[in-house]
Amino acid sequence: MKTLPGGTVTSPRGFLAGATRAGLKTKGDLDLGILYSEVSCVAAGLFTTNRIKAAPVIWCQRHIAAGKSQAIVANAGCANACIGEQGLEDAAEMARLAARRLGIEPQDVLVASTGVIGERLPIDLIGIGIERVALSQEGGHELARAILTTDTCTKEVAVAADDDEFTIGGIAKGSGMIHPNLGTLLCFLATDAAIDAHFLEKALGEAVDTSFNMVTVDGDTSPNDTVLILANGTSGVVGSIGEGTKQAEEFQAALTEVCNYLARRIARDGEGATRLIEVTVDGALTLDDARVAARTIAGSPLVKAAVHGCDPNWGRIVAALGRSGAEIDGARIDLFLNDIRLVAGGSPHTFDEEKVRAAMRGAEVPIRVCLNLGDFAATAWGCDLSAEYVTINSEYTT
Amino acid sequence: MKTLPGGTVTSPRGFLAGATRAGLKTKGDLDLGILYSEVSCVAAGLFTTNRIKAAPVIWCQRHIAAGKSQAIVANAGCANACIGEQGLEDAAEMARLAARRLGIEPQDVLVASTGVIGERLPIDLIGIGIERVALSQEGGHELARAILTTDTCTKEVAVAADDDEFTIGGIAKGSGMIHPNLGTLLCFLATDAAIDAHFLEKALGEAVDTSFNMVTVDGDTSPNDTVLILANGTSGVVGSIGEGTKQAEEFQAALTEVCNYLARRIARDGEGATRLIEVTVDGALTLDDARVAARTIAGSPLVKAAVHGCDPNWGRIVAALGRSGAEIDGARIDLFLNDIRLVAGGSPHTFDEEKVRAAMRGAEVPIRVCLNLGDFAATAWGCDLSAEYVTINSEYTT
Repeated sequence: MKTLPGGTVTSPRGFLAGATRAGLKTKGDLDLGILYSEVSCVAAGLFTTNRIKAAPVIWCQRHIAAGKSQAIVANAGCANACIGEQGLEDAAEMARLAARRLGIEPQDVLVASTGVIGERLPIDLIGIGIERVALSQEGGHELARAILTTDTCTKEVAVAADDDEFTIGGIAKGSGMIHPNLGTLLCFLATDAAIDAHFLEKALGEAVDTSFNMVTVDGDTSPNDTVLILANGTSGVVGSIGEGTKQAEEFQAALTEVCNYLARRIARDGEGATRLIEVTVDGALTLDDARVAARTIAGSPLVKAAVHGCDPNWGRIVAALGRSGAEIDGARIDLFLNDIRLVAGGSPHTFDEEKVRAAMRGAEVPIRVCLNLGDFAATAWGCDLSAEYVTINSEYTT
Repeated sequence: MKTLPGGTVTSPRGFLAGATRAGLKTKGDLDLGILYSEVSCVAAGLFTTNRIKAAPVIWCQRHIAAGKSQAIVANAGCANACIGEQGLEDAAEMARLAARRLGIEPQDVLVASTGVIGERLPIDLIGIGIERVALSQEGGHELARAILTTDTCTKEVAVAADDDEFTIGGIAKGSGMIHPNLGTLLCFLATDAAIDAHFLEKALGEAVDTSFNMVTVDGDTSPNDTVLILANGTSGVVGSIGEGTKQAEEFQAALTEVCNYLARRIARDGEGATRLIEVTVDGALTLDDARVAARTIAGSPLVKAAVHGCDPNWGRIVAALGRSGAEIDGARIDLFLNDIRLVAGGSPHTFDEEKVRAAMRGAEVPIRVCLNLGDFAATAWGCDLSAEYVTINSEYTT
């Protein structure tokens, strides 16, 4: 498997994208875009677990059930959430407008929105914008920009199989309201592999479980969380990838790598974040224990604030572990920060505080907790909590 | 029922308290204190649900099981948590030292600590301090100060029955690591009522459920959470209060009022807080739904940041409600801020934004969500999220 330099969602064969300024973002940046496959795709998606679902999520859930799609139209600046029936009509209209522009059927267009909740989608601006979007093979970069909200950079990646049998590309946006499940976000994935629909759904679930579902920025989950994958089968390889084959393993590994990369980038670019926190919990009795423990530590406001202040306050890490619900034995816990041992058997271990502080000043702060109870491990990603997070979220307009 | 002006934990008859500077707090304020009853008390307690329990919590759980006690010794500055067997020995020694000072048995002394996790209790300083504590009927005020950490003010209250048949007094500390269950804190309650031990435990559970368990500051739960109540029966009224009597109802109401007052004070004084958020959810299908919905909204970082910025961003409130797990129907939700309607039937309702912003500038921001599904209601308390919270928790020493 190899990472493609400058790779994005349009790196796989047969995908085009583009974006424009429709006027939805107050700052006047790109805010509307389209991802389009030249041929019909096998499609799968995962959506927010929030009981309040944005209208585009309801549209996608309805139409992805058929397992096929050909395009995604997305906007930032307005979430099209919490505005009743009108929202559903506007999401459907957005699909119709994109379908007309692309010469395909509305039910083959998936829709995604992100931004302010509770405001009506300015469908007239969306319509004018859709007509203006120019599609190209390089357009993935523009689309990656168009879906950002308070993100400070695009999240884009593409990997190819060693023998070039397939390529997978993806883009994502994150920043605020980031928490399992899903790690609140928009993520669009594309591949030129020919894939069995059932396997694609399963592979996506597995990749999302170890990536986006292990990212936490602020514990809030948005009504708009959407991960979509389109597989257009244009790689030229005959026969589709199905479960249990060697190709399937390769595909799963590549898809997981793409999602992990994007998830880490989202955590690193959390609102106001200055560094990435990577929490690994091993020696857990069950996988669920390892996962919930890692996520709880990565999401603790007190741990996040301590990391921001480069303060090796491991008591907060142990306290978060203790409330996570994971099975633990306090007297068996070992704890490491950047491989420096802080806790041995649940008690303080002498360490060079200046060395630990120095390690915490890095762009990535790795925390490892060994429960010493079983064989399961999991990794979660978060970011430090800065005053900037508060500023962003006090001033982000309704 | 009446609130006693300047009331505190020593307002009930037969209780003495005092505090001293033992040298545990870096700033040199009061940090060690004792609450003492002249006669043996019926006692009950509630403790952290964190699986990591501080040594004093383990001591209290062991000794309160007998249902009687006569004193509480407490310190701030060091949590005596996460230091293995040594911690248990130090907690026992702290009880022994206080017992010797008071001329009672160590098993009749409850112990509480709050402060930094993972450091050994300086038991020599504790010993010297205990000898120095001067007990008096006014000493509740000093004890209230001695248990504070990053709190900015004491939390004290006392109420008496209309006929003066009993008095209940209480003090608490909160500030950080505040979240159900319990709303992380120390709280010491005292009453001169004569109470049946079984009823006292039940009454405490009920009072804590609607008060401390409905307070959230930052979602973190400390290993030291402790609520203790001592009932010494010195009110002069013959016969103890047992379940099902009119007196029991009065006592429950008074105890709940004391706990609610202290809980609100804790939320209002959350780390970095500038205002209290009071979230009421009504029309819920079950009490659990109402409780979890109210707490999730009060605890959402995005809601907290919006309140800090006086931004009527109701979409964040609805999003938090949606991820709370409570049963909801998005099309039936009504939402009010300071009695101004923002949402009707799940859709935006026209409101005067300037009026809402003005209401949000007050010391208390009341949010009300009507689910319109059933008959259950609950109220939770939280505080806004300010840059100051981050500063405090980045710089609070390990």
